[in-house]
Amino acid sequence: MQLIDGKAIAAQIKKEIATEVEQIIAGGGKRPHLAAILVGHDGGSETYVASKVKACEECGFISTLIRYEEDITEEQLLYKVQELNNDPDIDGFIVQLPLPKHIDEQKITEAIDYRKDVDGFHPINVGRLSIGLPCFLSATPNGIMELLARYDIETKGKKCVVLGRSNIVGKPMASLMMQKSLPGDATVTVCHSHTENIAEECRKADIIIAALGQPHFVKADMVKEGAVVIDVGTTRVNDDTRKSGFRLCGDVDFDNVAPKCSYITPVPGGVGPMTIVSLMKNTLLAGKREIYK
Amino acid sequence: MQLIDGKAIAAQIKKEIATEVEQIIAGGGKRPHLAAILVGHDGGSETYVASKVKACEECGFISTLIRYEEDITEEQLLYKVQELNNDPDIDGFIVQLPLPKHIDEQKITEAIDYRKDVDGFHPINVGRLSIGLPCFLSATPNGIMELLARYDIETKGKKCVVLGRSNIVGKPMASLMMQKSLPGDATVTVCHSHTENIAEECRKADIIIAALGQPHFVKADMVKEGAVVIDVGTTRVNDDTRKSGFRLCGDVDFDNVAPKCSYITPVPGGVGPMTIVSLMKNTLLAGKREIYK
Repeated sequence: MQLIDGKAIAAQIKKEIATEVEQIIAGGGKRPHLAAILVGHDGGSETYVASKVKACEECGFISTLIRYEEDITEEQLLYKVQELNNDPDIDGFIVQLPLPKHIDEQKITEAIDYRKDVDGFHPINVGRLSIGLPCFLSATPNGIMELLARYDIETKGKKCVVLGRSNIVGKPMASLMMQKSLPGDATVTVCHSHTENIAEECRKADIIIAALGQPHFVKADMVKEGAVVIDVGTTRVNDDTRKSGFRLCGDVDFDNVAPKCSYITPVPGGVGPMTIVSLMKNTLLAGKREIYK
Repeated sequence: MQLIDGKAIAAQIKKEIATEVEQIIAGGGKRPHLAAILVGHDGGSETYVASKVKACEECGFISTLIRYEEDITEEQLLYKVQELNNDPDIDGFIVQLPLPKHIDEQKITEAIDYRKDVDGFHPINVGRLSIGLPCFLSATPNGIMELLARYDIETKGKKCVVLGRSNIVGKPMASLMMQKSLPGDATVTVCHSHTENIAEECRKADIIIAALGQPHFVKADMVKEGAVVIDVGTTRVNDDTRKSGFRLCGDVDFDNVAPKCSYITPVPGGVGPMTIVSLMKNTLLAGKREIYK
């Protein structure tokens, strides 16, 4: 069994990006600039945004954090989105989700100029991902593809089971794994809450990508010998032994599943760090105008 | 075994649309107007476009056919697309594919205003389909969903195998079948040229949607007793007994597969007529500005 070290790969990619940024600067180019809008004070969102700002520093990007209180109106937020769309100094930006209930998340997402949509949530980027055209890829699936590539894991013709059909993980993950490209070219099955025999589906998989958000859902008897298991779950469970009062729990019963696997990602330190790195990759692409002019 | 009569359902839907159009006109509304651009004289394209024009008549739509010779430049075609985008009288339009090799099909597709893209090929419509938002659905998958709905075929929790991963059938079909909606909510597997044991995958399927374009690929021993089989294949094979010199051949070995099925579509007369009806449904939606304002 080999542990997939997302933390180490993420660190390595950030170094690669930082090197490229310094070359851009040396060549008289512009330092990539990512802006993030954070509304309210949700604990998870605060942590994510702080990590993103820190990653920007590590990559040599400029970052701008724009904060609003919970009571910002949809109109005010849309106005700010337009401002960022029109600001030539901002290469890409994100609006951290979730947003307060009085704001329509989809409306905000679609208001972002797709050429600056480094989260890859705009329908144009979603559609281009599905068709197989260059685009800003959704961060988590992009991070997983990078791990599969860097560990040289064979995907062509392999049976890949994706657990979960969310718009930001399950669906784009399935799209990428079925594309005629590598990694990809897999036979993909998407399972979800209505799948009749999910254990049986998993047992046939060469690659399992678990993104249900159900702690320890994938048990040892659901995994075949030698399978590759990618754990996207990051449910917070109470843990009084931690300073934070919680720990992150994956969708996979790691201790019992790991011995059967050829490769497995831990939680934390697997997919998580790669997700932020994907955002950095997109920001670099945005800065270089490599996907859209 | 019940035969799914796409021809009859298509005729019925066209009548429903015609009735609605007359109500719109009676209420002082505008008659939907579809334009089609046809470049060159490809036999298949000529037939498809003629069928679309005829279907418009049956639905009470206005149709405009714009013809160009093979030697039209990309620039000229793009100019015409812009003209149609800006013409308030045109509710929706299509550019019949394939286009001559010197024209970039993707560029043309993306130049079409997504609000008039009744083929549903623009990345915005592809992305919205994937996310599960209202959009112009790709015609063939939309037609298949309509057949499943009208025959009240259960899909929730069922195992659905999609054969083929094309951008216009396989991928959107998989997206629709996995959506949290009905028809849909199925466990979807997408198989393709690199799938290792495609027969085995098919044998486990409650629903097989064959869109490989390989005549008689699906044999009786690949289908389980009671399965639903949808045949998207329409390969032209030589047939000297026909006036046209060819007949349409499905992806399914119909004679041997049909006895095992609970439901099956014939070729022709199954999915084919529904594809054109889907275009009519989209044109009606475009005329009513029901999806986009």
